[in-house]
Amino acid sequence: MSDTPDSAVRTYIQQHRAAFLDDLAEWLRIPSVSAQPEHAGDVARSADWLVAKLKETGFPVAEVWPTAGAPAVFAEWPSDDPEAPTVLVYGHHDVQPAARADGWHTDPFEPVLADGRLHARGAADDKGQVFFHTLGVRAHLAATGRTAPAVRLKLLIEGEEESGSPHFRALVEAGADRLAADAVIVSDTGMWSETTPTVCTGMRGLADCEIELYGPDQDIHSGSFGGAVPNPATVAARLVAALHDADERVTIPGFYDGVAPLTDAERALFAELPFDEKAWLSTAKSHGTLGEDGYSTLERIWARPTAEVNGIGGGYQGPGGKTIIPSSATLKLSFRLVAGQDPDLIEVAVSQWIAQRVPAGIRYDLAFGASTRPCLTPLDHPALQSVARAMSRAFDGQKILFTREGGSGPAADLQDVLGAPVLFLGISVPSDGWHAPNEKVEVELLLKGVETAAHLWDDLAAALSRSV
Amino acid sequence: MSDTPDSAVRTYIQQHRAAFLDDLAEWLRIPSVSAQPEHAGDVARSADWLVAKLKETGFPVAEVWPTAGAPAVFAEWPSDDPEAPTVLVYGHHDVQPAARADGWHTDPFEPVLADGRLHARGAADDKGQVFFHTLGVRAHLAATGRTAPAVRLKLLIEGEEESGSPHFRALVEAGADRLAADAVIVSDTGMWSETTPTVCTGMRGLADCEIELYGPDQDIHSGSFGGAVPNPATVAARLVAALHDADERVTIPGFYDGVAPLTDAERALFAELPFDEKAWLSTAKSHGTLGEDGYSTLERIWARPTAEVNGIGGGYQGPGGKTIIPSSATLKLSFRLVAGQDPDLIEVAVSQWIAQRVPAGIRYDLAFGASTRPCLTPLDHPALQSVARAMSRAFDGQKILFTREGGSGPAADLQDVLGAPVLFLGISVPSDGWHAPNEKVEVELLLKGVETAAHLWDDLAAALSRSV
Repeated sequence: MSDTPDSAVRTYIQQHRAAFLDDLAEWLRIPSVSAQPEHAGDVARSADWLVAKLKETGFPVAEVWPTAGAPAVFAEWPSDDPEAPTVLVYGHHDVQPAARADGWHTDPFEPVLADGRLHARGAADDKGQVFFHTLGVRAHLAATGRTAPAVRLKLLIEGEEESGSPHFRALVEAGADRLAADAVIVSDTGMWSETTPTVCTGMRGLADCEIELYGPDQDIHSGSFGGAVPNPATVAARLVAALHDADERVTIPGFYDGVAPLTDAERALFAELPFDEKAWLSTAKSHGTLGEDGYSTLERIWARPTAEVNGIGGGYQGPGGKTIIPSSATLKLSFRLVAGQDPDLIEVAVSQWIAQRVPAGIRYDLAFGASTRPCLTPLDHPALQSVARAMSRAFDGQKILFTREGGSGPAADLQDVLGAPVLFLGISVPSDGWHAPNEKVEVELLLKGVETAAHLWDDLAAALSRSV
Repeated sequence: MSDTPDSAVRTYIQQHRAAFLDDLAEWLRIPSVSAQPEHAGDVARSADWLVAKLKETGFPVAEVWPTAGAPAVFAEWPSDDPEAPTVLVYGHHDVQPAARADGWHTDPFEPVLADGRLHARGAADDKGQVFFHTLGVRAHLAATGRTAPAVRLKLLIEGEEESGSPHFRALVEAGADRLAADAVIVSDTGMWSETTPTVCTGMRGLADCEIELYGPDQDIHSGSFGGAVPNPATVAARLVAALHDADERVTIPGFYDGVAPLTDAERALFAELPFDEKAWLSTAKSHGTLGEDGYSTLERIWARPTAEVNGIGGGYQGPGGKTIIPSSATLKLSFRLVAGQDPDLIEVAVSQWIAQRVPAGIRYDLAFGASTRPCLTPLDHPALQSVARAMSRAFDGQKILFTREGGSGPAADLQDVLGAPVLFLGISVPSDGWHAPNEKVEVELLLKGVETAAHLWDDLAAALSRSV
């Protein structure tokens, strides 16, 4: 390979690959489990470790940003071009809980490199994908001979993503001036598969609620009273059943208001992906598909809003029977939202719909959790094309396809507060086992991530300058 | 009062009242809790105690009848008239669990007599109501000068009623020859209120089932997969919601087959009862009524079959939200049945209905519990009129009204196996607190029970002889 920028990047990465993996392993040894209070010190240690490493990488600014919960990390590396656009990279340094007893073959916090895979909690979600930006920016500088990045590069690495990012929006709002950016790069998603590199263009939003329904003051005898008083478990079930019509469309009035219809171009792009329903069902650990009439499975999970019951409970759930009318029932509903939907309006629509459906004699409490807005970057956005080009160079010229993500993330808060388009750069694959035992990252893909990051800043600087 | 049979009965009862209450208290001290294995010895002791007491009372035959579970007691006292009809009294000597910690003001197994009430677990349900037959038959003999009862009197007092009578049917089938009777008197129910003595004419039957619904092999992410695969909690909820139509009628095809319509006479009798909806709701600890269109509350609980969800569960039920599609859901349904319905046919109808409603991709297991047949004695049955007459004498000539019981009991097995009409003689009142802390029985009503039993055998002997 001649000394093109691409080969220079590869050469640099190969030279630093071992140290990069050693450093990542050191970080992965810190059990920064944000959901478990006993690991609060580890989350703080993880933030400190990252600050030190980012300084070592060359970031002139690298700071711990405290929150009311676990700390985030902020770093900044100005460009040598004062006109250069600003890019903010988002990721998180906290991880899901993990224990040998859950089915791990090795200690989740003692990284093991085997068969080209690095196994550890956080290897893919999200320390590995945060960390590829460190070697990425160094390779960018090395290959281009720059002393500072082609963009003003900022990093915001939060510490509570796995706990639902309860303080993230406040953090972004408080730090909005320093976080200001022309584009946000989220490195906390994945791509289609090992052989089909893709760029994600958006995530669904989320609204969720908990409904407690109260009937009799205590469980009562279903013989003595059954058939004559309202049963809160029946009411809970009727709410769930009424959520959808026979076409599996959500029935709540106003629910679809503002939803942009899928364009033919978008549907065609989805259809380009090598979707194998059997394989998808296996990933979904499910035994059949069911969803809104008129849409494919990918369209249903990426581009259509949904209503789902996440939990329902009421009355006797032990073995055998118990002839009671339960005193109360509980219901957890969540709604995935797509571009054009506003979680605040959805909450109003849901509240009204529930109020109209709970019969006399049943009292209820309704509480909404923190909502997440949907985000979607148009396919023709120049920055999106830039990410796809950088990725294609890392993947030897392979065509980059586009996906979306059915889940929801705090990235939407960045789009919302900073007013910047959100782009997704992730190299994780479905088999990486996010949140599952034996999480891993494919080392070659991790290095493709480094390579993409190394190519991205020049391309993005040009694309964003043109688009201004 | 002159020395009429009625006053002779009263005099006898007054003379033996103290000893009767002392004996009952002794029995109540035995914590014969059939549902708790650690009390198995107490249940056996309770049976032995009763056998001894029945022998002391004068029953020539009094035996413990072992079962695969807790023992029953059988006793028999032939009439001096070889042509006399045979009457079998049913009750139970086991009790519900009880502990001070549940809210009892006194030790549940240390009877306390205060303000005309005897407080103890089992005081009303059912030891008190079994026991009034001992003094009852003695008063019958004393007042009539007989040396043996006017009927061939049999007693079957089971030891597992509070555990769902798992071995009762087998016991009755095995002992059918010795249990053969022309009528069954069940003393394990109550009457309308302290001031409205009533006779119950029937109980509803019961069929119940447990449905486990299986979707994904594990809980899956509602963002990644939501909207595209069937959710077992949604399926469970849709089953519950589909059980009833907008008129709260059960929708399962064939469910109402064989149900005899309520006659005008029956409706008129129900309407004679001093029903106060507010008071009833307070007893039901409920805050509204809801039931099948076109029927009153009493008609709904006594004379109409129902479908009720006793328990539902699936997914996350803890505090806050969890964005999953649950792997499974569980559902407990029960059906109260009325005369004309056959639990076996109901089970077939329910099975078919469920099979048609579970979508592809969801697997399920369905299991039915032991069912109970409904029982109903026609209002014009001579034995029923006999019970009402005996009760009226005990209640100073007061008019006896007729009720039914919405619950279900093993009495139906007696009707079914022995082919005898079932009559209910109970003096317990709603405030007695069956299955609740501080169960009690009103002593004056208990003695009215004794008095009714004392009057019953002569009247019933005549009524049954006429009706043969």
